[in-house]
Amino acid sequence: MIYLDNSATTSPYKEVLDSFYKVSQGFFANPSSIHYLGGEVEQLLTKAKEQAASLLNVLPKELIFTSGGTESNNLAIKGIALQHQNRGKHIITTQIEHPSVLEACRSLEQFGFDVTYLSVDIEGKVSPEQVKAAIREDTILISIMHVNNEIGTIQPIEEIAAISQQYPKLFFHVDHVQGLGKVPLHLAHEGIDLCSMSSHKIHGLKGTGLLYIKRGTSLYPLVHGGGQQEEIRPGTENVSGIVAMVKALRLTFDNQKNKIDEISKLSRSIRECLAADSRIYINSPKTGAPHIINISVPGYKPEVVIHALGKKDIFISTKSACSSKHSDESAVLAACGLEQSRTMHGFRISLSFYNTEEEINQFCRTFLEVLDELSDVMGR
Amino acid sequence: MIYLDNSATTSPYKEVLDSFYKVSQGFFANPSSIHYLGGEVEQLLTKAKEQAASLLNVLPKELIFTSGGTESNNLAIKGIALQHQNRGKHIITTQIEHPSVLEACRSLEQFGFDVTYLSVDIEGKVSPEQVKAAIREDTILISIMHVNNEIGTIQPIEEIAAISQQYPKLFFHVDHVQGLGKVPLHLAHEGIDLCSMSSHKIHGLKGTGLLYIKRGTSLYPLVHGGGQQEEIRPGTENVSGIVAMVKALRLTFDNQKNKIDEISKLSRSIRECLAADSRIYINSPKTGAPHIINISVPGYKPEVVIHALGKKDIFISTKSACSSKHSDESAVLAACGLEQSRTMHGFRISLSFYNTEEEINQFCRTFLEVLDELSDVMGR
Ligand SMILES: Cc1ncc(COP(=O)(O)O)c(C=O)c1O
Ligand SMILES: Cc1ncc(COP(=O)(O)O)c(C=O)c1O
Repeated sequence: MIYLDNSATTSPYKEVLDSFYKVSQGFFANPSSIHYLGGEVEQLLTKAKEQAASLLNVLPKELIFTSGGTESNNLAIKGIALQHQNRGKHIITTQIEHPSVLEACRSLEQFGFDVTYLSVDIEGKVSPEQVKAAIREDTILISIMHVNNEIGTIQPIEEIAAISQQYPKLFFHVDHVQGLGKVPLHLAHEGIDLCSMSSHKIHGLKGTGLLYIKRGTSLYPLVHGGGQQEEIRPGTENVSGIVAMVKALRLTFDNQKNKIDEISKLSRSIRECLAADSRIYINSPKTGAPHIINISVPGYKPEVVIHALGKKDIFISTKSACSSKHSDESAVLAACGLEQSRTMHGFRISLSFYNTEEEINQFCRTFLEVLDELSDVMGR
Repeated sequence: MIYLDNSATTSPYKEVLDSFYKVSQGFFANPSSIHYLGGEVEQLLTKAKEQAASLLNVLPKELIFTSGGTESNNLAIKGIALQHQNRGKHIITTQIEHPSVLEACRSLEQFGFDVTYLSVDIEGKVSPEQVKAAIREDTILISIMHVNNEIGTIQPIEEIAAISQQYPKLFFHVDHVQGLGKVPLHLAHEGIDLCSMSSHKIHGLKGTGLLYIKRGTSLYPLVHGGGQQEEIRPGTENVSGIVAMVKALRLTFDNQKNKIDEISKLSRSIRECLAADSRIYINSPKTGAPHIINISVPGYKPEVVIHALGKKDIFISTKSACSSKHSDESAVLAACGLEQSRTMHGFRISLSFYNTEEEINQFCRTFLEVLDELSDVMGR
């Protein structure tokens, strides 16, 4: 099996699964229970949070565990909007955010918020100048992703953070779900107030995510309850999931030193091989994240290609998994200004630290073969 | 170890953990991915939902998986409130709900909702007549728990459901977290519109819960995103957690036929043994749930007793885990009208299907011994 759909989700590290198992079995008590067993679990939780904080270079109390990237994004955006709406009701984001950001913003429009969806250039980039120009008297939140999940564009987060810092009324939220472990981000940058992460994109487990909330930043919780996690995200903690996420984070950070270079090389070799074929357009910018290569093959139905590749045990995707069942067109490619022959025929190849040169060579060879076979069938 | 804090959380079934591991490893793909691997996982998810539905005697599309009981309660209450607020802004609940219900209701007060917190009698019971009398023209939601988590009172859910049914504008939500597997509930009762469950209370894993939403009932989501789970609860599904929860549900339902009688017997023997001691008051009603026995021992500091029992490898709790760190007084016992000598000195013994007669005998003996030892120390 050659799995190249790592931006949809990754296969968990064995060590992560083993930790999950061990903690679920040996530390099952409720960390809020005041007896010794509860105390032990509470300590484990504290240690996990401390380790995550040290890996991310932030304070333990700045981290809140959630059920995933979708919840983290919603908590950040709605949490700031509801808590600080008397300061203003304007939000700035971009047209190519993940649905969990776009739809959270849209939902706020129903509650009287005004949202600016910034356009992007042909490479999916938003400029710091655009952001600056969009800031109004009543802007309370900017939410911009670090790495785009469909085409891998890296946004100028630090420049935007520097701008945001000049407006004390304004919060800046970064969706770092796709960047984590692949494109370093200086989380402790004073201009970044909130930052979302998800475990299952870094070989952790589904159902756990993180939200970094800079000390001093208050937000309105999505759920209320028994007071856990500073009352920002109550509910009995998913202790094993949290420990497993922190382990995935550590392994990912340990690996990234060497592995980022390796996947950059693999990525270049995919681009070179595919770009040489006249049927194929490369949509991802050269300066994008190393693990995402988006291409278009006009005239070829994405599902048919995916299906043919699947038969050969190779797995890539059309666009992002979340939106893949809605329509054929990629909203991200459309926002980049590409024409329908490309937006309707996009593919995403996404790598993990586990992919090898051999796999990549075989993928490229097979992908071109599949196109040939399909042209024959289609009688071209 | 004698673990008698099962209302705080339970130790997972080995089969549940094994399922979780196997699914995480072998079915890691994203169920939204359109390739074969994604399709396989989607099928698994569909099958899990069907199995849960068949166990609970409802329709698959009436079930939404969440991150736990707290989220289920919040989604039900805020979801109905926000979606149907133009019908009215009045909510009815009781004074002894779990914090995830009480605080969700309180948070809605900030958004202009009016909440009636019904009082309860000395056994923690609310009467159907009280509920009926509280219903107003603008009432849109009644939220009442099935089994109280501190004292085990069983509320007259079916009678309340029958009343609610007479008011077509009104939704009825039941927090079934403590009842599940211990006190049967006819979920498909036409008067019940929403019902919350949590996996870790039935030997499943933390971080997964269920919300039953009767077909045709619309609610406003807490999180918005990629469209998963009928757009009511988007985010990449925690597939292994969901499969594990359904397995826990099945094992629990398989067991409950014999086991409910067994724990009822154990419960009676605890009551008899402890009631015979003049220092001890039994707070739980005789007609309560079989797995929760709440007692008060005036004059004895709960933490000290818990600590002394812990040293002997016996684990019980004071009140509910969620509120145990806030104050010494049990808000539930106070709402029952008990005096401070009892509300400040409460203990909860909570059983699971795993507890044995031997454990219970040893617990009772040891509990009384500990009281004796502590009286000596205190010089009484
Ligand atoms: C950029 C981005 N943000 C947010 C999410 C949502 O994360 P999760 O799947 O953990 O809900 C995803 C992945 O689906 C993503 O790629
Ligand atoms: C009655 C009741 N409702 C809700 C909850 C919350 O469930 P969870 O711990 O899964 O968030 C609990 C347990 O803590 C409970 O006992």
